[in-house]
Amino acid sequence: MPEPSNPHFEEAVRNSFAAQQLMATIGARLTLVAAGEIEIRVRFRPDLTQQHGFLHAGVVTSALDSACGYAAFSLMPDGVGVLTVEFKTNLLAPARGEELIARGRVVRVGRTITVCQADASMISDGVETSVATMLATIMMVRDRPDVVG
Amino acid sequence: MPEPSNPHFEEAVRNSFAAQQLMATIGARLTLVAAGEIEIRVRFRPDLTQQHGFLHAGVVTSALDSACGYAAFSLMPDGVGVLTVEFKTNLLAPARGEELIARGRVVRVGRTITVCQADASMISDGVETSVATMLATIMMVRDRPDVVG
Amino acid sequence: MPEPSNPHFEEAVRNSFAAQQLMATIGARLTLVAAGEIEIRVRFRPDLTQQHGFLHAGVVTSALDSACGYAAFSLMPDGVGVLTVEFKTNLLAPARGEELIARGRVVRVGRTITVCQADASMISDGVETSVATMLATIMMVRDRPDVVG
Amino acid sequence: MPEPSNPHFEEAVRNSFAAQQLMATIGARLTLVAAGEIEIRVRFRPDLTQQHGFLHAGVVTSALDSACGYAAFSLMPDGVGVLTVEFKTNLLAPARGEELIARGRVVRVGRTITVCQADASMISDGVETSVATMLATIMMVRDRPDVVG
Repeated sequence: MPEPSNPHFEEAVRNSFAAQQLMATIGARLTLVAAGEIEIRVRFRPDLTQQHGFLHAGVVTSALDSACGYAAFSLMPDGVGVLTVEFKTNLLAPARGEELIARGRVVRVGRTITVCQADASMISDGVETSVATMLATIMMVRDRPDVVG
Repeated sequence: MPEPSNPHFEEAVRNSFAAQQLMATIGARLTLVAAGEIEIRVRFRPDLTQQHGFLHAGVVTSALDSACGYAAFSLMPDGVGVLTVEFKTNLLAPARGEELIARGRVVRVGRTITVCQADASMISDGVETSVATMLATIMMVRDRPDVVG
Repeated sequence: MPEPSNPHFEEAVRNSFAAQQLMATIGARLTLVAAGEIEIRVRFRPDLTQQHGFLHAGVVTSALDSACGYAAFSLMPDGVGVLTVEFKTNLLAPARGEELIARGRVVRVGRTITVCQADASMISDGVETSVATMLATIMMVRDRPDVVG
Repeated sequence: MPEPSNPHFEEAVRNSFAAQQLMATIGARLTLVAAGEIEIRVRFRPDLTQQHGFLHAGVVTSALDSACGYAAFSLMPDGVGVLTVEFKTNLLAPARGEELIARGRVVRVGRTITVCQADASMISDGVETSVATMLATIMMVRDRPDVVG
């Protein structure tokens, strides 16, 4: 893993995460911030479910997307913006249990494009089960932090 | 497009959508149910945003995923279950504006696997702008409606 | 579709395609070059097959990838390079028949990132059947035509 | 990793690989067959290149796709067929060097759907560099070995 180029990367990640209002809405917490590695947890809540009573794929993907984006962002220089170009999620098992754990990590850092991978699991009665995996493409933007591409 | 094999497909889709509590939580409405075609709309709300104040990719993906899943489900026989195997989302532009429109349609129906495509746009001051596109793999399950794969 | 910014885009596409030796190896021909739109055809050959005697997904993907890349390249300014960042292929039916047709088109042009979509079909006894669909992310590189990301 | 249910899985994989004529055409060799794990190698050849003289993404994807498909197949019971439903490839660096190594492994085995992951690297002067990563969805078919979905 390359060294982080922003010595204050943890603060930068935490500030940006705190500004994602969706994370508060779904009860997502940032439980690990390391260089190139992020963990986000979401407690099960009935209002986040799909038709069978498990966490909706959209919630799982929200956590995985943020985990990938911030894993990439943690290795970027100070002052740049981060954008998700695309992601793919494979759903592996129903997201049943008490808590979702989404762990993102950087696979490859490029000048503009960073590729990340993330896994989601559910804790149920103390046992962790894989429920999804994501492969994502993240982009660094220097001068237009709010525009994709 | 194949004929729907369940004459009550609209009711089946509406009942399942109503059971997805996440849809109510993010304010998603089912605005079109046709055979192999679904439209879902989500009004902009500050509590659904990412760090730049636009709708979070997770919200866009939640709507696209449900649009794909129900487009596939609308063509399935009565009594089966529907599962998302995987999806890929390309984000095309920031999701800024007053309302998100997610339109899903069936690309190909197989015996077990249905492939769907969906597009998301935002309406802003009456103008619609594409913000994301999804390609998704949906699976019909006959006897285990709640288990992936 | 935006206007092409390189008036000689067709020549640029044809020259680059001719330099892709794999295309000659699999017998791929560039059968349409328009602004933001490319068609590539590959005749069935037994030495391009998978274990059931149909065209291998790798051959289908090679044609789709080049169709997407050159659709994006056709809209780029003179002198830049084009790189595939990633693609996703859904296989819809066995690639059986006499000839593969891969059609790529630009979905969205960004400053750096272009998103393309492509469809593959097989012609068999004069009937065209969809066999695959691709969603791809292509990147323009100004100064490093040979380095990804 | 689950135990292989076919005691002759290695023979089944080797026979099927030998029947993929494309593998011979691109010079792909099956260099490891284990339960849930496959390695395929392809030596660099000028006739497999893209416009900058590196291995074409289609060749890299062909090797990754076969590595994923056979990793899944190695865990399947005797007599079934294996189909690739879809895959996504992220290209990480130019495929330059003497030899491509594609390593596929099973992430999750389902009743019908198996999810696989594969990595590709190039060996250049004895140094191995990651060039691509794939996430793939593979399907077991019991009675129609030659039809997708």
